[in-house]
Amino acid sequence: MQVISLDQVPSAPMMMAGAEGVTKQVPIGVAAGAPNFSFRVFTVVPGGHTPYHIHNSEHLNYVMQGEGVLIDEAGNKHPVKAGEFALVKPNEKHQYRNTSATEDLKMICAVLSAYE
Amino acid sequence: MQVISLDQVPSAPMMMAGAEGVTKQVPIGVAAGAPNFSFRVFTVVPGGHTPYHIHNSEHLNYVMQGEGVLIDEAGNKHPVKAGEFALVKPNEKHQYRNTSATEDLKMICAVLSAYE
Repeated sequence: MQVISLDQVPSAPMMMAGAEGVTKQVPIGVAAGAPNFSFRVFTVVPGGHTPYHIHNSEHLNYVMQGEGVLIDEAGNKHPVKAGEFALVKPNEKHQYRNTSATEDLKMICAVLSAYE
Repeated sequence: MQVISLDQVPSAPMMMAGAEGVTKQVPIGVAAGAPNFSFRVFTVVPGGHTPYHIHNSEHLNYVMQGEGVLIDEAGNKHPVKAGEFALVKPNEKHQYRNTSATEDLKMICAVLSAYE
């Protein structure tokens, strides 16, 4: 077993097209020995956003800090804030946007290992 | 997609032998449509603990609130606190204990759907 603090985990900019001001960490993943699924953490700066995209895998999310919106395939904005959970099912178009002027939006985004 | 607050999620005592002062919620699971794995939340009262047990599935944990120890198969106590992650691999004996005198220990415990 292993206890992991985020400050021990390397952080890298998310280079995917459509991402703006997002960094990624993988506190629990394949490298740590997780056999089936992984916990990634995305940090989105004020005004930043993840790609508005679709994929055939799910996201299980937990908002660790901040506030924002989760945009669905119809363009509807679902408010999210620290302490809340979200499920994005396979093939649902989605995007996270940080709506705070001052605070980072930080969330767990759990995926199957193949999508880590 | 779905945004979920914990106060919307039913809570039930963990009845498993060896559990003391633990309640369970499932904010994202099979009922919500998660296809592969689930986010459960365990709340452990001061002095409470999860079972000291072993199983062939993994736990991916995130401590949402409080502080405690994660006990390994040798009996070693690994301190954990809010904001930290832990991986318990398959077949590693483990137990969470709340070491605070006043504050609940609350954590995400993610498992494959079959173990929800």
